[in-house]
Amino acid sequence: MSTATTTPKRADARRNIEAIVEAATTLLAADPDASMLAIAKEAGVGRVTLYGHFPSRPVLIAEVAARAIAHTDHALNAVDTDGDPREAMERLLVATWGLTHRFGGIVVAANQALAPDAVRQAHEEPARRVRMLLERGREQGEFTASMPVEWQLTTIQAVLHAASAAVHRGEITAEQAPSLVSATVIAALTPPG
Amino acid sequence: MSTATTTPKRADARRNIEAIVEAATTLLAADPDASMLAIAKEAGVGRVTLYGHFPSRPVLIAEVAARAIAHTDHALNAVDTDGDPREAMERLLVATWGLTHRFGGIVVAANQALAPDAVRQAHEEPARRVRMLLERGREQGEFTASMPVEWQLTTIQAVLHAASAAVHRGEITAEQAPSLVSATVIAALTPPG
Repeated sequence: MSTATTTPKRADARRNIEAIVEAATTLLAADPDASMLAIAKEAGVGRVTLYGHFPSRPVLIAEVAARAIAHTDHALNAVDTDGDPREAMERLLVATWGLTHRFGGIVVAANQALAPDAVRQAHEEPARRVRMLLERGREQGEFTASMPVEWQLTTIQAVLHAASAAVHRGEITAEQAPSLVSATVIAALTPPG
Repeated sequence: MSTATTTPKRADARRNIEAIVEAATTLLAADPDASMLAIAKEAGVGRVTLYGHFPSRPVLIAEVAARAIAHTDHALNAVDTDGDPREAMERLLVATWGLTHRFGGIVVAANQALAPDAVRQAHEEPARRVRMLLERGREQGEFTASMPVEWQLTTIQAVLHAASAAVHRGEITAEQAPSLVSATVIAALTPPG
């Protein structure tokens, strides 16, 4: 076989893989129970092509989750967490909100299809960044140190997920969500008076 | 049949029903997937007795949920929601926390086994009380009115459920939870400055 015939085939396979992963990311984000059939349809490929690249749903979900984690790390790396802790927390929350809302359904799908370890990883790195900033803000007296850091982290995750669910229910809009999340968390970290 | 022979039988049936419902409440609160077999064992009754009174798991769960809702209404009715809105909110949150933590697993079990309407009811009445107090506090300027009431309600529910999950994970103790929930929610409702 000459390169002339294999290269287009490889390029074709690569395009199909990208289309499948992209379709799976979109569908699973909206519905964690999205089927392989629906994903193939959305990607514009046949069942045989889909299962040729991803022999089972968990294999595909693992790839989608790995990419979501990589994308999340990349996006959070771009956030400036220096300077005033409250302003830094606002920047970090707005970025994290976007990722939570975009990838929330994928975390649910991964929870159902993959081992707990694979899922824990999705939260660890974002949580580590929030924790570091939280600790700095507590030391500087900007955030209250009268509650355990663990509890404050739990509260922040709960508010982020609650906002995503509220957008899905139509209670608030995706445009309102980042400022509501940010105002609510900053207030929760700053006791009255 | 004389009353002398039927009364002990009826009393026996009543005792069994109470034992089954009590066992189901305890087991489902800790594990929403608790089986009928485990419930019968905990209640100290046989399979035949259990299924004689509750022909299916959903029937039993419906009874457990109905009693949890009645108990919740009764407990929340006893809370004084008059006076200073912050103090009233603290009292209401501490009472609601206890019920969320005690009946949380039952809500999950009901979610899986019953129609959505039956489950919505479990949250409606407690939510109505919090909303009324929230609106009064906003009008009096004690709670911020710069966020939608719906979002504030969502935040409160998210913090309550997060606290219950954190206790189950061993992150915080059941003794710490009520004051953390209350301090976090009051802070979230009161913007800094």
